Amino acid sequence: MKAWRVLESRTIVDRRWLKVHEQRIELPHGGEIDEFHLLETPSWVATLALTEAGEVVLVDQYRHGAARVSRELPAGVIDEGESPERAAKRELLEETGFASDRWSPLIELATEPGRNTTRAHFWVALGAHRVAAQSTEPSEHIAVAVVPARSLLAEIDAGVIVHGVHVAAILLAAQRGLLTL
Amino acid sequence: MKAWRVLESRTIVDRRWLKVHEQRIELPHGGEIDEFHLLETPSWVATLALTEAGEVVLVDQYRHGAARVSRELPAGVIDEGESPERAAKRELLEETGFASDRWSPLIELATEPGRNTTRAHFWVALGAHRVAAQSTEPSEHIAVAVVPARSLLAEIDAGVIVHGVHVAAILLAAQRGLLTL
Repeated sequence: MKAWRVLESRTIVDRRWLKVHEQRIELPHGGEIDEFHLLETPSWVATLALTEAGEVVLVDQYRHGAARVSRELPAGVIDEGESPERAAKRELLEETGFASDRWSPLIELATEPGRNTTRAHFWVALGAHRVAAQSTEPSEHIAVAVVPARSLLAEIDAGVIVHGVHVAAILLAAQRGLLTL
Repeated sequence: MKAWRVLESRTIVDRRWLKVHEQRIELPHGGEIDEFHLLETPSWVATLALTEAGEVVLVDQYRHGAARVSRELPAGVIDEGESPERAAKRELLEETGFASDRWSPLIELATEPGRNTTRAHFWVALGAHRVAAQSTEPSEHIAVAVVPARSLLAEIDAGVIVHGVHVAAILLAAQRGLLTL
Protein backbone atom coordinates (compact mmCIF):
# COMPACT_ATOMS: atom_id res chain seq x y z
CA MET A 1 0.00 0.00 0.00
CA LYS A 2 1.77 3.09 -1.29
CA ALA A 3 1.98 6.71 -0.16
CA TRP A 4 0.10 9.47 -1.92
CA ARG A 5 2.06 11.76 -4.22
CA VAL A 6 1.62 15.50 -3.72
CA LEU A 7 1.36 17.16 -7.14
CA GLU A 8 0.73 20.70 -5.86
CA SER A 9 0.65 22.24 -2.40
CA ARG A 10 -0.42 25.72 -1.42
CA THR A 11 -0.36 26.94 2.17
CA ILE A 12 -3.67 28.74 2.73
CA VAL A 13 -3.28 29.26 6.50
CA ASP A 14 0.13 29.94 7.99
CA ARG A 15 -0.10 30.69 11.70
CA ARG A 16 2.02 29.66 14.66
CA TRP A 17 -0.22 26.78 15.79
CA LEU A 18 -1.92 25.97 12.50
CA LYS A 19 -0.84 25.57 8.92
CA VAL A 20 -3.36 24.41 6.33
CA HIS A 21 -1.92 23.05 3.10
CA GLU A 22 -4.33 22.73 0.17
CA GLN A 23 -2.99 19.94 -2.00
CA ARG A 24 -3.62 18.17 -5.27
CA ILE A 25 -2.89 14.48 -4.80
CA GLU A 26 -2.02 11.69 -7.20
CA LEU A 27 -3.33 8.42 -5.84
CA PRO A 28 -1.04 5.38 -6.18
CA HIS A 29 -3.85 3.25 -7.61
CA GLY A 30 -5.02 5.76 -10.18
CA GLY A 31 -6.91 8.99 -10.07
CA GLU A 32 -6.41 12.25 -8.26
CA ILE A 33 -7.86 14.21 -5.36
CA ASP A 34 -8.27 17.79 -6.56
CA GLU A 35 -8.33 19.45 -3.18
CA PHE A 36 -7.11 17.80 0.01
CA HIS A 37 -6.44 19.79 3.19
CA LEU A 38 -3.45 18.68 5.22
CA LEU A 39 -3.48 20.24 8.70
CA GLU A 40 -0.01 20.83 10.09
CA THR A 41 -0.74 21.03 13.79
CA PRO A 42 1.60 20.83 16.81
CA SER A 43 2.41 17.58 18.54
CA TRP A 44 1.67 17.44 22.24
CA VAL A 45 2.38 15.48 25.38
CA ALA A 46 0.08 14.35 28.16
CA THR A 47 0.88 12.68 31.46
CA LEU A 48 -0.90 10.05 33.49
CA ALA A 49 0.34 11.12 36.93
CA LEU A 50 -0.47 8.66 39.71
CA THR A 51 -0.11 9.36 43.41
CA GLU A 52 0.98 6.77 45.95
CA ALA A 53 -2.64 6.71 47.15
CA GLY A 54 -3.90 5.41 43.79
CA GLU A 55 -5.20 8.76 42.57
CA VAL A 56 -4.81 10.37 39.16
CA VAL A 57 -3.94 14.04 38.72
CA LEU A 58 -6.36 15.57 36.20
CA VAL A 59 -7.24 19.08 35.01
CA ASP A 60 -10.59 20.67 34.27
CA GLN A 61 -10.75 23.47 31.72
CA TYR A 62 -13.10 25.04 29.22
CA ARG A 63 -12.47 23.68 25.72
CA HIS A 64 -13.66 25.93 22.96
CA GLY A 65 -13.77 23.25 20.23
CA ALA A 66 -16.11 21.09 22.28
CA ALA A 67 -17.78 24.21 23.77
CA ARG A 68 -17.72 22.73 27.26
CA VAL A 69 -15.55 21.94 30.26
CA SER A 70 -13.44 18.85 29.73
CA ARG A 71 -11.54 16.79 32.32
CA GLU A 72 -8.20 15.75 30.85
CA LEU A 73 -4.70 14.59 31.61
CA PRO A 74 -2.27 17.48 32.13
CA ALA A 75 -1.05 18.16 28.61
CA GLY A 76 0.45 20.71 26.31
CA VAL A 77 2.24 21.43 23.08
CA ILE A 78 5.89 20.40 22.77
CA ASP A 79 8.08 23.49 22.39
CA GLU A 80 10.53 23.71 19.52
CA GLY A 81 13.65 21.72 20.32
CA GLU A 82 12.08 20.23 23.44
CA SER A 83 11.90 16.46 23.99
CA PRO A 84 8.46 14.95 24.70
CA GLU A 85 9.68 13.80 28.14
CA ARG A 86 10.86 17.28 29.09
CA ALA A 87 7.62 18.80 27.80
CA ALA A 88 5.59 16.30 29.86
CA LYS A 89 7.49 17.20 33.05
CA ARG A 90 7.15 20.92 32.35
CA GLU A 91 3.43 20.78 31.60
CA LEU A 92 2.64 18.61 34.65
CA LEU A 93 4.48 21.05 36.90
CA GLU A 94 3.01 24.19 35.31
CA GLU A 95 -0.58 22.99 35.17
CA THR A 96 -0.79 21.14 38.47
CA GLY A 97 2.30 21.83 40.62
CA PHE A 98 2.95 18.06 40.71
CA ALA A 99 6.26 16.33 40.00
CA SER A 100 7.60 12.79 40.02
CA ASP A 101 10.95 10.96 39.97
CA ARG A 102 9.54 7.91 38.17
CA TRP A 103 8.74 8.68 34.55
CA SER A 104 8.22 6.19 31.74
CA PRO A 105 6.81 6.44 28.22
CA LEU A 106 3.33 4.96 27.77
CA ILE A 107 2.52 5.25 24.07
CA GLU A 108 2.63 7.55 21.07
CA LEU A 109 -0.60 7.95 19.09
CA ALA A 110 -1.98 9.92 16.17
CA THR A 111 -4.97 12.15 16.88
CA GLU A 112 -6.53 12.33 13.41
CA PRO A 113 -4.14 10.48 11.06
CA GLY A 114 -6.29 11.17 8.00
CA ARG A 115 -5.28 14.78 7.68
CA ASN A 116 -3.58 16.01 10.89
CA THR A 117 0.15 15.68 11.44
CA THR A 118 -0.17 15.82 15.25
CA ARG A 119 1.42 13.10 17.35
CA ALA A 120 0.35 12.68 20.96
CA HIS A 121 3.05 11.42 23.33
CA PHE A 122 1.86 9.94 26.60
CA TRP A 123 4.00 9.52 29.69
CA VAL A 124 3.34 7.90 33.05
CA ALA A 125 4.57 9.54 36.26
CA LEU A 126 4.41 7.26 39.30
CA GLY A 127 4.48 8.52 42.87
CA ALA A 128 3.43 11.99 41.74
CA HIS A 129 3.28 14.57 44.51
CA ARG A 130 2.71 18.29 44.81
CA VAL A 131 5.93 20.29 44.91
CA ALA A 132 4.84 23.77 43.85
CA ALA A 133 1.89 26.00 43.12
CA GLN A 134 0.26 25.95 39.71
CA SER A 135 1.94 28.39 37.29
CA THR A 136 -0.28 28.61 34.24
CA GLU A 137 -0.36 31.35 31.64
CA PRO A 138 -2.88 34.17 31.96
CA SER A 139 -4.99 32.71 29.13
CA GLU A 140 -5.25 29.35 30.90
CA HIS A 141 -7.80 28.75 33.63
CA ILE A 142 -7.22 25.25 34.88
CA ALA A 143 -8.62 23.53 37.97
CA VAL A 144 -6.69 20.56 39.30
CA ALA A 145 -8.74 17.46 40.19
CA VAL A 146 -7.02 14.61 42.03
CA VAL A 147 -9.41 11.69 41.69
CA PRO A 148 -9.27 7.99 42.63
CA ALA A 149 -8.36 5.84 39.63
CA ARG A 150 -11.43 3.67 40.32
CA SER A 151 -13.71 6.63 39.45
CA LEU A 152 -12.28 7.13 35.94
CA LEU A 153 -14.46 4.62 34.10
CA ALA A 154 -17.62 6.24 35.44
CA GLU A 155 -16.30 9.64 34.36
CA ILE A 156 -15.59 8.32 30.86
CA ASP A 157 -19.06 6.74 30.66
CA ALA A 158 -20.66 9.99 31.86
CA GLY A 159 -18.74 12.08 29.33
CA VAL A 160 -16.85 14.06 31.99
CA ILE A 161 -13.65 12.73 30.42
CA VAL A 162 -14.42 13.11 26.72
CA HIS A 163 -11.03 13.62 25.03
CA GLY A 164 -10.79 10.43 23.00
CA VAL A 165 -7.01 10.22 22.80
CA HIS A 166 -6.68 10.74 26.56
CA VAL A 167 -9.24 7.99 27.13
CA ALA A 168 -7.03 5.66 25.09
CA ALA A 169 -4.03 6.42 27.31
CA ILE A 170 -5.96 5.90 30.55
CA LEU A 171 -7.36 2.54 29.41
CA LEU A 172 -4.02 1.40 28.04
CA ALA A 173 -2.31 2.16 31.34
CA ALA A 174 -4.97 0.12 33.10
CA GLN A 175 -4.49 -2.71 30.62
CA ARG A 176 -0.78 -2.71 31.47
CA GLY A 177 -1.52 -2.86 35.21
CA LEU A 178 -0.29 0.65 36.01
CA LEU A 179 -3.60 1.61 37.61
CA THR A 180 -6.77 -0.18 38.69
CA LEU A 181 -9.99 1.17 37.25
CA MET B 1 -16.00 27.35 35.02
CA LYS B 2 -17.52 29.54 32.33
CA ALA B 3 -17.54 29.44 28.54
CA TRP B 4 -15.39 31.75 26.46
CA ARG B 5 -17.07 34.68 24.78
CA VAL B 6 -16.41 35.21 21.08
CA LEU B 7 -15.87 38.92 20.43
CA GLU B 8 -15.08 38.61 16.72
CA SER B 9 -15.07 35.69 14.31
CA ARG B 10 -13.82 35.63 10.76
CA THR B 11 -13.98 32.51 8.59
CA ILE B 12 -10.59 32.24 6.88
CA VAL B 13 -11.13 28.79 5.33
CA ASP B 14 -14.56 27.76 4.09
CA ARG B 15 -14.46 24.39 2.37
CA ARG B 16 -16.79 21.40 2.45
CA TRP B 17 -14.81 19.40 5.02
CA LEU B 18 -13.00 22.23 6.79
CA LYS B 19 -13.93 25.63 8.10
CA VAL B 20 -11.37 27.64 10.04
CA HIS B 21 -12.73 30.46 12.15
CA GLU B 22 -10.20 33.02 13.38
CA GLN B 23 -11.62 34.45 16.59
CA ARG B 24 -10.94 37.06 19.21
CA ILE B 25 -11.93 35.67 22.59
CA GLU B 26 -12.87 37.28 25.88
CA LEU B 27 -11.85 35.00 28.72
CA PRO B 28 -14.32 34.66 31.60
CA HIS B 29 -11.60 35.28 34.20
CA GLY B 30 -10.13 38.34 32.54
CA GLY B 31 -8.01 38.97 29.49
CA GLU B 32 -8.39 38.14 25.84
CA ILE B 33 -6.97 35.80 23.25
CA ASP B 34 -6.26 37.89 20.16
CA GLU B 35 -6.25 35.08 17.65
CA PHE B 36 -7.77 31.66 18.30
CA HIS B 37 -8.45 29.19 15.49
CA LEU B 38 -11.60 27.13 15.84
CA LEU B 39 -11.65 24.22 13.40
CA GLU B 40 -15.13 23.27 12.28
CA THR B 41 -14.58 19.72 11.11
CA PRO B 42 -17.08 16.93 10.35
CA SER B 43 -18.19 14.44 12.95
CA TRP B 44 -17.65 10.79 12.12
CA VAL B 45 -18.65 7.30 13.10
CA ALA B 46 -16.59 4.17 13.54
CA THR B 47 -17.65 0.60 14.21
CA LEU B 48 -16.15 -2.18 16.26
CA ALA B 49 -17.49 -5.10 14.24
CA LEU B 50 -16.98 -8.49 15.87
CA THR B 51 -17.49 -11.84 14.17
CA GLU B 52 -18.86 -14.92 15.92
CA ALA B 53 -15.32 -16.32 15.82
CA GLY B 54 -13.97 -13.53 18.05
CA GLU B 55 -12.41 -11.54 15.24
CA VAL B 56 -12.52 -7.80 14.61
CA VAL B 57 -13.11 -6.32 11.15
CA LEU B 58 -10.48 -3.65 10.49
CA VAL B 59 -9.31 -1.62 7.50
CA ASP B 60 -5.82 -0.70 6.33
CA GLN B 61 -5.34 2.49 4.35
CA TYR B 62 -2.78 5.16 3.65
CA ARG B 63 -3.31 8.20 5.87
CA HIS B 64 -1.83 11.38 4.52
CA GLY B 65 -1.78 13.26 7.86
CA ALA B 66 0.31 10.54 9.50
CA ALA B 67 2.10 9.85 6.17
CA ARG B 68 1.77 6.11 6.64
CA VAL B 69 -0.59 3.16 6.46
CA SER B 70 -2.87 2.97 9.48
CA ARG B 71 -5.04 0.06 10.65
CA GLU B 72 -8.36 1.41 11.88
CA LEU B 73 -11.97 0.61 12.61
CA PRO B 74 -14.22 1.04 9.56
CA ALA B 75 -15.21 4.69 9.81
CA GLY B 76 -16.43 7.70 7.92
CA VAL B 77 -17.98 11.11 8.02
CA ILE B 78 -21.69 11.37 8.92
CA ASP B 79 -23.64 12.72 5.95
CA GLU B 80 -25.91 15.70 6.38
CA GLY B 81 -29.21 14.61 7.94
CA GLU B 82 -27.91 11.10 8.59
CA SER B 83 -28.00 9.54 12.07
CA PRO B 84 -24.72 8.22 13.49
CA GLU B 85 -26.18 4.70 13.60
CA ARG B 86 -27.16 4.78 9.94
CA ALA B 87 -23.78 6.21 8.99
CA ALA B 88 -22.03 3.44 10.93
CA LYS B 89 -24.01 0.74 9.10
CA ARG B 90 -23.39 2.40 5.73
CA GLU B 91 -19.65 2.82 6.27
CA LEU B 92 -19.17 -0.74 7.54
CA LEU B 93 -20.95 -2.14 4.50
CA GLU B 94 -19.20 0.15 1.99
CA GLU B 95 -15.69 -0.27 3.35
CA THR B 96 -15.78 -3.96 4.25
CA GLY B 97 -18.92 -5.63 2.84
CA PHE B 98 -19.81 -6.70 6.40
CA ALA B 99 -23.19 -6.25 8.10
CA SER B 100 -24.77 -7.14 11.43
CA ASP B 101 -28.22 -7.36 13.02
CA ARG B 102 -26.95 -6.56 16.51
CA TRP B 103 -25.91 -2.92 16.81
CA SER B 104 -25.41 -0.94 19.99
CA PRO B 105 -23.81 2.42 20.78
CA LEU B 106 -20.43 2.22 22.51
CA ILE B 107 -19.41 5.80 23.29
CA GLU B 108 -19.20 9.31 21.88
CA LEU B 109 -15.87 11.09 22.22
CA ALA B 110 -14.21 14.35 21.19
CA THR B 111 -11.13 14.07 19.00
CA GLU B 112 -9.38 17.35 19.86
CA PRO B 113 -11.76 19.27 22.14
CA GLY B 114 -9.42 22.24 22.44
CA ARG B 115 -10.16 23.60 19.00
CA ASN B 116 -11.93 20.97 16.85
CA THR B 117 -15.70 20.59 16.83
CA THR B 118 -15.57 16.95 15.68
CA ARG B 119 -17.44 14.31 17.65
CA ALA B 120 -16.59 10.64 17.11
CA HIS B 121 -19.49 8.22 17.54
CA PHE B 122 -18.57 4.59 18.13
CA TRP B 123 -20.88 1.65 17.57
CA VAL B 124 -20.50 -2.05 18.24
CA ALA B 125 -21.77 -4.61 15.72
CA LEU B 126 -21.92 -8.17 17.09
CA GLY B 127 -22.10 -11.25 14.90
CA ALA B 128 -20.76 -9.29 11.93
CA HIS B 129 -20.56 -11.27 8.71
CA ARG B 130 -19.75 -10.60 5.08
CA VAL B 131 -22.84 -9.95 2.96
CA ALA B 132 -21.47 -8.05 -0.03
CA ALA B 133 -18.35 -6.95 -1.82
CA GLN B 134 -16.55 -3.79 -0.76
CA SER B 135 -17.95 -0.71 -2.55
CA THR B 136 -15.55 2.13 -1.80
CA GLU B 137 -15.16 5.37 -3.73
CA PRO B 138 -12.47 5.65 -6.40
CA SER B 139 -10.32 7.83 -4.12
CA GLU B 140 -10.38 5.22 -1.35
CA HIS B 141 -8.02 2.27 -1.39
CA ILE B 142 -8.90 0.16 1.60
CA ALA B 143 -7.77 -3.37 2.48
CA VAL B 144 -9.98 -5.31 4.87
CA ALA B 145 -8.18 -7.14 7.70
CA VAL B 146 -10.18 -9.56 9.84
CA VAL B 147 -7.97 -10.17 12.87
CA PRO B 148 -8.40 -12.06 16.17
CA ALA B 149 -9.31 -9.70 19.01
CA ARG B 150 -6.44 -11.14 21.04
CA SER B 151 -3.93 -9.68 18.58
CA LEU B 152 -5.15 -6.07 18.97
CA LEU B 153 -3.04 -5.14 21.99
CA ALA B 154 0.15 -6.19 20.23
CA GLU B 155 -0.89 -4.15 17.19
CA ILE B 156 -1.50 -1.10 19.39
CA ASP B 157 1.87 -1.56 21.13
CA ALA B 158 3.61 -1.94 17.77
CA GLY B 159 1.97 1.18 16.35
CA VAL B 160 0.09 -0.72 13.62
CA ILE B 161 -3.11 0.65 15.16
CA VAL B 162 -2.13 4.27 15.85
CA HIS B 163 -5.38 6.25 15.66
CA GLY B 164 -5.74 7.34 19.28
CA VAL B 165 -9.52 7.74 19.32
CA HIS B 166 -10.00 4.28 17.78
CA VAL B 167 -7.64 2.82 20.40
CA ALA B 168 -9.92 4.29 23.08
CA ALA B 169 -12.97 2.57 21.61
CA ILE B 170 -11.24 -0.81 21.32
CA LEU B 171 -10.00 -0.71 24.91
CA LEU B 172 -13.34 0.52 26.22
CA ALA B 173 -15.18 -2.33 24.49
CA ALA B 174 -12.75 -4.77 26.11
CA GLN B 175 -13.29 -3.10 29.48
CA ARG B 176 -17.01 -3.69 29.06
CA GLY B 177 -16.50 -7.36 28.23
CA LEU B 178 -17.51 -7.10 24.56
CA LEU B 179 -14.23 -8.58 23.39
CA THR B 180 -11.26 -10.32 24.97
CA LEU B 181 -7.88 -8.78 24.23
